[in-house]
Amino acid sequence: MLIGDHAVGGEELFVIAGPCAIESAEQLTRVGQTVRAAGAQALRGGAFKPRTSPYAFQGLAGEGLALLREYKQRTGHLVVTEVMDAAQLDAVADVADVLQIGARNMHNSYLLAAVGEARRPVLLKRSFGATASELLHAAEYILARGNEAVLLCERGIRSYETCTRFTLDVGAIAWLKQQTHLPVLVDPSHAAGASALVTPLALAGVAAGADGLLIEVHHDPSRALSDADQALTPEAFASLIERLRPLAAALGRRLPAVTARGGRA
Amino acid sequence: MLIGDHAVGGEELFVIAGPCAIESAEQLTRVGQTVRAAGAQALRGGAFKPRTSPYAFQGLAGEGLALLREYKQRTGHLVVTEVMDAAQLDAVADVADVLQIGARNMHNSYLLAAVGEARRPVLLKRSFGATASELLHAAEYILARGNEAVLLCERGIRSYETCTRFTLDVGAIAWLKQQTHLPVLVDPSHAAGASALVTPLALAGVAAGADGLLIEVHHDPSRALSDADQALTPEAFASLIERLRPLAAALGRRLPAVTARGGRA
Amino acid sequence: MLIGDHAVGGEELFVIAGPCAIESAEQLTRVGQTVRAAGAQALRGGAFKPRTSPYAFQGLAGEGLALLREYKQRTGHLVVTEVMDAAQLDAVADVADVLQIGARNMHNSYLLAAVGEARRPVLLKRSFGATASELLHAAEYILARGNEAVLLCERGIRSYETCTRFTLDVGAIAWLKQQTHLPVLVDPSHAAGASALVTPLALAGVAAGADGLLIEVHHDPSRALSDADQALTPEAFASLIERLRPLAAALGRRLPAVTARGGRA
Amino acid sequence: MLIGDHAVGGEELFVIAGPCAIESAEQLTRVGQTVRAAGAQALRGGAFKPRTSPYAFQGLAGEGLALLREYKQRTGHLVVTEVMDAAQLDAVADVADVLQIGARNMHNSYLLAAVGEARRPVLLKRSFGATASELLHAAEYILARGNEAVLLCERGIRSYETCTRFTLDVGAIAWLKQQTHLPVLVDPSHAAGASALVTPLALAGVAAGADGLLIEVHHDPSRALSDADQALTPEAFASLIERLRPLAAALGRRLPAVTARGGRA
Repeated sequence: MLIGDHAVGGEELFVIAGPCAIESAEQLTRVGQTVRAAGAQALRGGAFKPRTSPYAFQGLAGEGLALLREYKQRTGHLVVTEVMDAAQLDAVADVADVLQIGARNMHNSYLLAAVGEARRPVLLKRSFGATASELLHAAEYILARGNEAVLLCERGIRSYETCTRFTLDVGAIAWLKQQTHLPVLVDPSHAAGASALVTPLALAGVAAGADGLLIEVHHDPSRALSDADQALTPEAFASLIERLRPLAAALGRRLPAVTARGGRA
Repeated sequence: MLIGDHAVGGEELFVIAGPCAIESAEQLTRVGQTVRAAGAQALRGGAFKPRTSPYAFQGLAGEGLALLREYKQRTGHLVVTEVMDAAQLDAVADVADVLQIGARNMHNSYLLAAVGEARRPVLLKRSFGATASELLHAAEYILARGNEAVLLCERGIRSYETCTRFTLDVGAIAWLKQQTHLPVLVDPSHAAGASALVTPLALAGVAAGADGLLIEVHHDPSRALSDADQALTPEAFASLIERLRPLAAALGRRLPAVTARGGRA
Repeated sequence: MLIGDHAVGGEELFVIAGPCAIESAEQLTRVGQTVRAAGAQALRGGAFKPRTSPYAFQGLAGEGLALLREYKQRTGHLVVTEVMDAAQLDAVADVADVLQIGARNMHNSYLLAAVGEARRPVLLKRSFGATASELLHAAEYILARGNEAVLLCERGIRSYETCTRFTLDVGAIAWLKQQTHLPVLVDPSHAAGASALVTPLALAGVAAGADGLLIEVHHDPSRALSDADQALTPEAFASLIERLRPLAAALGRRLPAVTARGGRA
Repeated sequence: MLIGDHAVGGEELFVIAGPCAIESAEQLTRVGQTVRAAGAQALRGGAFKPRTSPYAFQGLAGEGLALLREYKQRTGHLVVTEVMDAAQLDAVADVADVLQIGARNMHNSYLLAAVGEARRPVLLKRSFGATASELLHAAEYILARGNEAVLLCERGIRSYETCTRFTLDVGAIAWLKQQTHLPVLVDPSHAAGASALVTPLALAGVAAGADGLLIEVHHDPSRALSDADQALTPEAFASLIERLRPLAAALGRRLPAVTARGGRA
């Protein structure tokens, strides 16, 4: 599957990094430049934020999309952002290189059908209450409409254990790789719920067979408007990538090269 | 909270019964007449069906709504049906006395906000991966838009146990009754996943404090187009209500009276 | 199944109440007298306490058994206490009318086999990580040795939900009643983890089909050496029984009569 | 921590492999020779088998221990075997280089205290219903008696997901490595429940930080008397180790060298 000029699901791991929520142009520039320099092929950032409470920060919406478009045009970096409702789809697809469907919408079959009509790759996150088999069924809603560019993403499931926020299900990654040709990414940030655990979970996900990563990075996590506890600093992200590099090689995979200017060779 | 002329959340239990999916006018008439005769204040039936697989029966859609409208006009029986997308809301609200939000949409904040603007009571089902606290947060999305008529519904959560399809969380019913003034219903059918277990789970839910029930009833369960295993026959439903009647009285609650003609006194 | 002169599993519910841990003769007398007056056929109290941490109170051991024996001889009240190791079995069986196997020992097949040789009824609690089917298998270890007096007990399982300490699985109670002739009790105290939720869970368990209850009662819960949060006062226990009485009747069951003197008619 | 002449918890991974249950001298010889040749520092094999049902194969008991002793004396290979009851401890400790406490006994505080008095390292497996924090508490029961040689082992927990038999909790491995100095092993075989998933789970566990592995290997899995579905053939085990070798190196760890004769250099 080609995203930009990257063959996702092949030898090279696909790395998406960036803030949970788009907050400002300066934030996108600072985070985007550093994660790109470290090797991330795409920047993620949410304009629409699905929050548990209606009183929590809900994202910058249209303004966030405009900031993302400006960032993309200026840098040429790929961008990934979430679409939460079919009514937003045209506006989001006009900016995003990859449409993200969040865990809370994995069962939203109307939204799945809508992105199935879009001409954009879809990053489909597993609901934290869904089986891996149900994730495949959800992907079918998209595939059945003719959009074959679906990336699955494991991001942790609900269990009784509380040492991590969710339980990262590496068994599901391994099982999915044996069941489907679709690429499978891993999101260790939401599973960990704590920045100190993100790197070992990222390594574990790739070792289990994941074809890429989705990592939360913020230039100043303590001031992040959402998911502050689990966001990595750009330096910590670069360190994660450096630890991942030899592991990827050991698995016959590779990570993108790092460039001094923040672009790719 | 008044629904029709029923004070929900008071002494009288509110009983909603009917098929998972609307299949035909004859089906609605047969099931509706018998559940009403047994004491159900409202008929449920889905025109839009959220299914795990895109290849399973998805409901009769607009045709189903038309059948439901015709049933309602002919009988005067209250009807409850699910809305799955904001684009359907006007059409559904035009027929439904109560708008149902299914478990798979509990986290769909756009749909929650949309029904928050509607002038219809909302039956909000708990996601099988959500905490009871998150159910209250989801209700806030509706309440915050001015719609104060929200009925919560516990329908079983995911756990490792497989003797039932989901694990009915009576502790959440008891906890919710201590946390909120909103009525709390129990859906034992989806939790049980097998008709033989529906009655004990219904009794347990009411004993834990539930203000009403949501029960799947089909005139010929073996031919039901969805959820065949857990649907009760009209006779089994009437038997459930007869077993529930003295239990309700013991708890200071009551069930509606039964009438010979299938209407209520 | 006869325990003392009580036919457990029949019309009369079997109620066991008392402190988590035996602390003193005075405690046993005060709690025992009041729970008996309210209708409990047996007093429970632990001499050996299985605790998560080795640094928490582990029970009075032999001294606790001596206090329990003295209480029993003086009052004639049935007593239930836990056996945690085969080496204790003779000493415990010499005092206990019912041998309790705790949730943490449900998979301890050596202990199960040992009580299978004992001439005492066994109260077998479900592990909070075990399926209902595995509880039946554990009972087989006892039955296979010739001890047919096994009472099963549901006490809540581990799930992701945190509004209760464990998730009381009323579906398992209903399922077990359809699978086995063995009596099934419910322990709402450990599931609730909070005294305010014990009564609705007790009612729900009986409504689901339980043949009796196991309730933690302490004369001064705030000073209890273990499980302080969930213990009921004797007054709250009496109130629970009074709320349970009409519900039991509605289900065709009954509770023991209350006597002024703390004994039974 | 030294086991034989291996520093467990250091740079070299500690690999234990062998059959679920000891079946015959020939089996031990065939499996032991091949897993040792591939790099396993120790052979595992159960003489006492904790089974869910009393009617399943329960192990060869004393005869199994005798076979294990004979294997050890003949080959000098380290052996790991489970102790299920304090009454067996002397007999087991007389043969075993490492005493295994199975998942079903993690909460058996009497057994934990007993092995706390033994002069043998203890491999403590996490109960599939226990939190990682409770695993640390269980280890304290052993440490508090003076035995400081405790190896923790993550082997999968119960969750609603069924694509693997248990959900391997790599987050707990990462968390434990940050909480304790004790070595942490991973058992991917019991988590996977299917041989095709053992290798990716093994890689994931080591990538998350595990200090070693526990792998089920049988010379003829289809005829194994227990756990047939998840046992690897000796060839598949050797292949797993070869895939693990570069990954370990990438993580700054290493695996033991392979020797032609089935011994180690």
